[in-house]
Amino acid sequence: MDEKILKLLTAVKEGKIGVEKAYEAFQGMPYEDLHHTKVDHHRAIRKGLQEVIFGEGKTVGQIIDIINSMRKKKEDVLVTRIDGAFGKALCKRFPAGIYHEAARCFTIQKKKTVKTGNGMVLVISAGTSDIPVAEEAYVTSLFFGNETEKLYDVGVAGIHRLFGNIDILKKAKVIIVAAGMEGALPSIVAGIVGVPVLAVPTSVGYGASFGGLTALLAMLNSCSTVSVFNIDNGFGAAYFATLINRL
Amino acid sequence: MDEKILKLLTAVKEGKIGVEKAYEAFQGMPYEDLHHTKVDHHRAIRKGLQEVIFGEGKTVGQIIDIINSMRKKKEDVLVTRIDGAFGKALCKRFPAGIYHEAARCFTIQKKKTVKTGNGMVLVISAGTSDIPVAEEAYVTSLFFGNETEKLYDVGVAGIHRLFGNIDILKKAKVIIVAAGMEGALPSIVAGIVGVPVLAVPTSVGYGASFGGLTALLAMLNSCSTVSVFNIDNGFGAAYFATLINRL
Amino acid sequence: MDEKILKLLTAVKEGKIGVEKAYEAFQGMPYEDLHHTKVDHHRAIRKGLQEVIFGEGKTVGQIIDIINSMRKKKEDVLVTRIDGAFGKALCKRFPAGIYHEAARCFTIQKKKTVKTGNGMVLVISAGTSDIPVAEEAYVTSLFFGNETEKLYDVGVAGIHRLFGNIDILKKAKVIIVAAGMEGALPSIVAGIVGVPVLAVPTSVGYGASFGGLTALLAMLNSCSTVSVFNIDNGFGAAYFATLINRL
Amino acid sequence: MDEKILKLLTAVKEGKIGVEKAYEAFQGMPYEDLHHTKVDHHRAIRKGLQEVIFGEGKTVGQIIDIINSMRKKKEDVLVTRIDGAFGKALCKRFPAGIYHEAARCFTIQKKKTVKTGNGMVLVISAGTSDIPVAEEAYVTSLFFGNETEKLYDVGVAGIHRLFGNIDILKKAKVIIVAAGMEGALPSIVAGIVGVPVLAVPTSVGYGASFGGLTALLAMLNSCSTVSVFNIDNGFGAAYFATLINRL
Amino acid sequence: MDEKILKLLTAVKEGKIGVEKAYEAFQGMPYEDLHHTKVDHHRAIRKGLQEVIFGEGKTVGQIIDIINSMRKKKEDVLVTRIDGAFGKALCKRFPAGIYHEAARCFTIQKKKTVKTGNGMVLVISAGTSDIPVAEEAYVTSLFFGNETEKLYDVGVAGIHRLFGNIDILKKAKVIIVAAGMEGALPSIVAGIVGVPVLAVPTSVGYGASFGGLTALLAMLNSCSTVSVFNIDNGFGAAYFATLINRL
Amino acid sequence: MDEKILKLLTAVKEGKIGVEKAYEAFQGMPYEDLHHTKVDHHRAIRKGLQEVIFGEGKTVGQIIDIINSMRKKKEDVLVTRIDGAFGKALCKRFPAGIYHEAARCFTIQKKKTVKTGNGMVLVISAGTSDIPVAEEAYVTSLFFGNETEKLYDVGVAGIHRLFGNIDILKKAKVIIVAAGMEGALPSIVAGIVGVPVLAVPTSVGYGASFGGLTALLAMLNSCSTVSVFNIDNGFGAAYFATLINRL
Amino acid sequence: MDEKILKLLTAVKEGKIGVEKAYEAFQGMPYEDLHHTKVDHHRAIRKGLQEVIFGEGKTVGQIIDIINSMRKKKEDVLVTRIDGAFGKALCKRFPAGIYHEAARCFTIQKKKTVKTGNGMVLVISAGTSDIPVAEEAYVTSLFFGNETEKLYDVGVAGIHRLFGNIDILKKAKVIIVAAGMEGALPSIVAGIVGVPVLAVPTSVGYGASFGGLTALLAMLNSCSTVSVFNIDNGFGAAYFATLINRL
Amino acid sequence: MDEKILKLLTAVKEGKIGVEKAYEAFQGMPYEDLHHTKVDHHRAIRKGLQEVIFGEGKTVGQIIDIINSMRKKKEDVLVTRIDGAFGKALCKRFPAGIYHEAARCFTIQKKKTVKTGNGMVLVISAGTSDIPVAEEAYVTSLFFGNETEKLYDVGVAGIHRLFGNIDILKKAKVIIVAAGMEGALPSIVAGIVGVPVLAVPTSVGYGASFGGLTALLAMLNSCSTVSVFNIDNGFGAAYFATLINRL
Repeated sequence: MDEKILKLLTAVKEGKIGVEKAYEAFQGMPYEDLHHTKVDHHRAIRKGLQEVIFGEGKTVGQIIDIINSMRKKKEDVLVTRIDGAFGKALCKRFPAGIYHEAARCFTIQKKKTVKTGNGMVLVISAGTSDIPVAEEAYVTSLFFGNETEKLYDVGVAGIHRLFGNIDILKKAKVIIVAAGMEGALPSIVAGIVGVPVLAVPTSVGYGASFGGLTALLAMLNSCSTVSVFNIDNGFGAAYFATLINRL
Repeated sequence: MDEKILKLLTAVKEGKIGVEKAYEAFQGMPYEDLHHTKVDHHRAIRKGLQEVIFGEGKTVGQIIDIINSMRKKKEDVLVTRIDGAFGKALCKRFPAGIYHEAARCFTIQKKKTVKTGNGMVLVISAGTSDIPVAEEAYVTSLFFGNETEKLYDVGVAGIHRLFGNIDILKKAKVIIVAAGMEGALPSIVAGIVGVPVLAVPTSVGYGASFGGLTALLAMLNSCSTVSVFNIDNGFGAAYFATLINRL
Repeated sequence: MDEKILKLLTAVKEGKIGVEKAYEAFQGMPYEDLHHTKVDHHRAIRKGLQEVIFGEGKTVGQIIDIINSMRKKKEDVLVTRIDGAFGKALCKRFPAGIYHEAARCFTIQKKKTVKTGNGMVLVISAGTSDIPVAEEAYVTSLFFGNETEKLYDVGVAGIHRLFGNIDILKKAKVIIVAAGMEGALPSIVAGIVGVPVLAVPTSVGYGASFGGLTALLAMLNSCSTVSVFNIDNGFGAAYFATLINRL
Repeated sequence: MDEKILKLLTAVKEGKIGVEKAYEAFQGMPYEDLHHTKVDHHRAIRKGLQEVIFGEGKTVGQIIDIINSMRKKKEDVLVTRIDGAFGKALCKRFPAGIYHEAARCFTIQKKKTVKTGNGMVLVISAGTSDIPVAEEAYVTSLFFGNETEKLYDVGVAGIHRLFGNIDILKKAKVIIVAAGMEGALPSIVAGIVGVPVLAVPTSVGYGASFGGLTALLAMLNSCSTVSVFNIDNGFGAAYFATLINRL
Repeated sequence: MDEKILKLLTAVKEGKIGVEKAYEAFQGMPYEDLHHTKVDHHRAIRKGLQEVIFGEGKTVGQIIDIINSMRKKKEDVLVTRIDGAFGKALCKRFPAGIYHEAARCFTIQKKKTVKTGNGMVLVISAGTSDIPVAEEAYVTSLFFGNETEKLYDVGVAGIHRLFGNIDILKKAKVIIVAAGMEGALPSIVAGIVGVPVLAVPTSVGYGASFGGLTALLAMLNSCSTVSVFNIDNGFGAAYFATLINRL
Repeated sequence: MDEKILKLLTAVKEGKIGVEKAYEAFQGMPYEDLHHTKVDHHRAIRKGLQEVIFGEGKTVGQIIDIINSMRKKKEDVLVTRIDGAFGKALCKRFPAGIYHEAARCFTIQKKKTVKTGNGMVLVISAGTSDIPVAEEAYVTSLFFGNETEKLYDVGVAGIHRLFGNIDILKKAKVIIVAAGMEGALPSIVAGIVGVPVLAVPTSVGYGASFGGLTALLAMLNSCSTVSVFNIDNGFGAAYFATLINRL
Repeated sequence: MDEKILKLLTAVKEGKIGVEKAYEAFQGMPYEDLHHTKVDHHRAIRKGLQEVIFGEGKTVGQIIDIINSMRKKKEDVLVTRIDGAFGKALCKRFPAGIYHEAARCFTIQKKKTVKTGNGMVLVISAGTSDIPVAEEAYVTSLFFGNETEKLYDVGVAGIHRLFGNIDILKKAKVIIVAAGMEGALPSIVAGIVGVPVLAVPTSVGYGASFGGLTALLAMLNSCSTVSVFNIDNGFGAAYFATLINRL
Repeated sequence: MDEKILKLLTAVKEGKIGVEKAYEAFQGMPYEDLHHTKVDHHRAIRKGLQEVIFGEGKTVGQIIDIINSMRKKKEDVLVTRIDGAFGKALCKRFPAGIYHEAARCFTIQKKKTVKTGNGMVLVISAGTSDIPVAEEAYVTSLFFGNETEKLYDVGVAGIHRLFGNIDILKKAKVIIVAAGMEGALPSIVAGIVGVPVLAVPTSVGYGASFGGLTALLAMLNSCSTVSVFNIDNGFGAAYFATLINRL
């Protein structure tokens, strides 16, 4: 951001733009005001990754407005956390888009996928029920241009299923592990490999799992040092994996 | 597991199998990959008890796939935590199966039930509302071949109902007690008998019962030493009772 | 309180007192301002029970001020929640007083104890460690003039100890039960007798007893209907028992 | 209970009944086994108050079975926690019964109501939304034969509404106060009157009221000493008020 | 902040300062780097109230460094949350300072106290034990130049003590109420007066008061609309009262 | 309230009204008893702001009764927390009313809006999903006669959107900030401006946001000193802003 | 217990004892009243395992009383949860006793240890810091006559340490696993072996381990089915292991 | 690990080692058994980073044993979470070591520090009180060979202090942010930069900060996507930063 200010100051000094103009420019960093939403087109510049639409709690109308704003700027689109009916509506409105059912995501991807990362992101799920969260991570990771693989249902109740797939673990540069219930799998994985493990607790479980709280707490206390994300936050882990992978 | 490795090493040494083959074998412990699920056929060997399907959060399609995989191996089938509509669908698809309504379980049991245990498992419920959890334990215990009895609605508000049934308590080798609300019954039972008492808190109650948390905490603090399972986990208690009973 | 106002209004009408005077009187209900404390001498009139000093968090100096204010009005004194050193200091300053070590209470009782209640208050403790709370209730109940008995260490791990003392249970008009850990004893007692049971959870326990929270929750969820007090609040239960007993 | 044993022993000694018979008698305290429920007909003898049916979590069929069992013994019937559709079904099946909509209770009361208590039970609600809980207490208190009055919507936001009704407060022998949100009303009431105040937290509120937990905690910490019941437990408070009122 | 930028841009344009200089100026907003602390001298400009030192968790050495830095700028000093030994050390080092024992605060106030507020701030405590928190608020309010009064020990157990002091309530422009246990007093006060009531829960209490959590929750659920501060945060309430009072 | 008593006493003395009458008057402070609700018409006098109807948990019938009672006194009407169907029903019954969809509020405002406040109230939302809470605050603030502005979707993920609108922040006299998730925005705003910031946590978020608890806790711990309201309590913040603004 | 009654009834019938005598006998089940404690000598008969002294919260004097009472009956003694100073005091008073420092237990064992169990109990600790809890289980298990082995510091951060000791796992009949932090080890162990695994969460950890709560919750949610005990309850697990082992 | 097995199998096949020997080798992965601790010398091979000693809860004796074991293998030593007295003892025993007071760490570093990372790790603290956690991260990061910088006391109450140091933020490849109280700083930092931000909640705060829980929850709900570590876990964040930095 400071470079921008430096440039602005230079331009003012050289008389290329007036003070008022400069002041406006300073305030007018690129976002677009849709009244209900201020779309942050600037994010791609600032963070190197474009904005993504978190679908939960937004109306179809609001999302369509945001997509239109993004499409005008030729940005690709990823909407997360939307159910099937919602996905259908978006597919109808934007025929170029795809609804990913297991992941509960909608994407419009026009730009040829360029591999931004130079390593592979591996997405692991502990059980069958953790797959929706894992898929959200998988679709997101692909959307951001990472080479991405998946390995599902290898939880600690039958740990030989993990050990039987140790080859793919060894190939990954970043590993995302989605697990519910006691949330022990990330600890095991991080005890074996030497790359960053991103742990995503899921709300899978019942009773004393308290909607994923138990898995979350277990991961935070891992004796193998993993980094932890919010419950069911597959998107966040994939986003973070991208930040690491492109370094 | 170590025996398996020892055999493998011997076979390699004696030239009976090649190194690559052995390596594959090592990785290829018996599970079957259905993409969404890695069915752990190996469990019966490793644990002495076959795999069971936890129905909650799985689709009908996924469960049918798993049942088919298990039936091919001639394994019996127990699906827990499925509602009536679900049970009906499975009964239609697998006419040899039975849906246990109170227990919310589905079973296909072809093998003649062999009594694996040499004692009786007694399932107790504190109140009428705790019966679904008690029934899950009851059906599971029978499925694993235990002689099993039940004694329902003998909670502490009218403790003479328990004392009036003291004969059956004295006959049991393992006792499972399902109780909600203040969760006091397991303490009383364990204060009377000299066999292991498995306490299952239920989500029965309201207000400060917090979905079974109060019963769970009370059982963990029992002054009579009981072992505790997750809220509503009738299956787990029966599974554990089986491990004890067959010793 | 309304009678007081009625009298005041009549006196004003009849010209017996002036308006200003009446207004002051209205504001000047009997309490004494010690700056740090406004001693509520009025309570005996309003509630029928005199004020008691909660010692925890007060300095010795503050307590001595309050006792002096109360002694001037010829009121008896009960100080709760003070440790031994504190008790010693008060005994030295007020030789007429007694420090009750197990109860952690200090009393000065000049008035001949008049039995205000017409029944017996029974104080029960589940275990040995619950005795301090039970003793606080016992000393308080005696202080307020109730016939009071005690029955200690009869918890559910050896429930025959309770049943062996059923005679005394049957004689009580109000029963106070102090219990920690799983807090099950009040439920059992209330399932046997037909008089009000006041349940006092204690902070006795460790781990998942969470300082008495588990016992508290268990009592609130009792299937036998007991009334519940704050953790370790032996005083409150005895105070409440007095309100019932004198009806 | 001990008298019963004493009688039994005497009868055995005098040869009036055989040992086996006596043993059976000892076990056969009066309850009736409906398989799913062991109806405690003995409670009226033991506790002086007959059994009541907690409707929540029971099926219509189970409740009808229990009512039939109770009607055969000429017992009156009170079912709590049932919604309108449920109440309608019971009214149809038992035309002598009444469904109390605001209280969500169903009663069949054949015995002429005898005033068991010698004082008045007053039921207070803090707000309009707390009325269902207050009504459960009101209907229950009447069912058990107490003279009962009510005073609704006098919460602390406009405390003059309480003070304007101080006459009725002064007449009560036991007071039940139902309050949600910050749960402060019981403290105020207990600071004014000299009779037992039974505090019932309600689940009324939102956000940080956590389904009544805040009101519950506030009441447990009352500086005026009230006794506390589970969240929304209007029945329990009225049951307990009856125990006090008939002393 | 924007005016500063505008000025800077104008100065650059007019050639009064170079680009580098301007850039430095932009970064160099007034704070002073003591390595461990960046003292925010700028706050007085930005917020209109000078920085205050939160003593808890800082060493004597660190605090002395900060005070020296502030004294050089002729700023007055307020240190909160320090115990007696600590206070003594500061008094010795800065003889111009005063340690306020009840409030656990240290002040050096050289500027003649100018009344910044045009109304009176009233500080109320529910009980004697809440006084330390109330005193922290009282000392802070005076420090920031407000006319400040106090009214202590007027909690809901004897609510007539509050009503007897209604004159002073009516005179206040902002009222701070510190209360522990059930935290009901702010609701009562806010139900009577028409000015902003700032509620400060205190950690006074035991058992289910959970270190002030109960009072905090109760205040957040007040039916009289009060604004709430962190547990024991007397400083914050007085700071906020100042913001209101000087409007 | 004391002036009322003083007048009453004087009138009694001067023989203008009898004692009985005066006593009645004392009790009969203005509220109207609708059985289910005691409408507090007195609030406008006592607090300077009229009563408002909290719609959640009330039936349509109850609300219509209250509105009728208020309309008879020529009071304006604000009903909060009602969904669309509910709003429609009220609009049909009271054609003069307006349903505010985003805010979930219903108003009947006959009195010409008089600006009671002498400054501007600014309502800020962190994200698009926080708008319903912000709108409740916005509609309420307007209803009470404040000049009110709004600034939405300026959360910390793209903090330049806030800094780009710093002009409007500087103009406000009181600022309400509604934020969910990590609830950080109020801290940032309060770090910039010198006027009172009222922080309203929203239930927006998932997983470890625990229905707004995380945002609530974060705001209570703000290092910039904000005052906090209950989760989603937009009404309360606007009510409190009015109290400040009219000082 | 019923046999005792049967015998009593027979004796009465046969005139061997009088009714009064029998009644007393019925009440007088064997415990000894030390005023503060009712020592349950009957437990050995009822449960098959003798009473043990929980030392925490008892005074030295109380413990010595209980030991004396037990020694008179020739019972062996186990005191748990006592620190070094306490242990020293007991050793001095009872020279025949041993203080086990790591386990914080004191034992007097006069009876030649008879192996009551027919299998081996294995005690595992996840880390070095979990050893005190594991040792409490180890000493207790030996005290009750079980063949007992230990395997320490084999947690999931270096899971090969567990796999390198798989021989001893395969030999055990019951396995106790003590683990803190994320509490994952019991799941791993139970996934490998086919015998009952008793999981003991420890309070080892910091921050979000919340004194062992995280480990406790993780174990309750184990996908491998383990039975769970209270935090740090090594004694309970060993007691329970004994119940299983002697079956 | 698989390569190791492959080599072993090949060696066996080629007759280079016998079956027994191979079997032992398989079990004998490199750790050293000190009875209380199994030192994991293998970690450097498996994870690429050597083992570190977590000091909390270990005795001086245990730590010295472990250090000796590590020194024999010529490994460098890092002990975390030890207080001053502890650090002194280690310095005396191992004169080559250094005790880092602010970080509460002890190091012996003989190997010339090789920069393993190719970027800079920046450690930020929100306040002065968060420095101990930040220093633990700083010392750890240096120990593992990363170029490391620090920026302290730049929290959100005076956010210009952060913006004034934006140059150093832009240079970092990984950023660690330690913050207590409301834990908002990581969100702000991650909203500005495009590299991975590792958020470490600290236990700094009081009242509703609940020992760091509030900061932890806030970070998990960050709208800017950060990865989160346990409360006060500066070591873990630095360890994880190293895994990222050396990619």
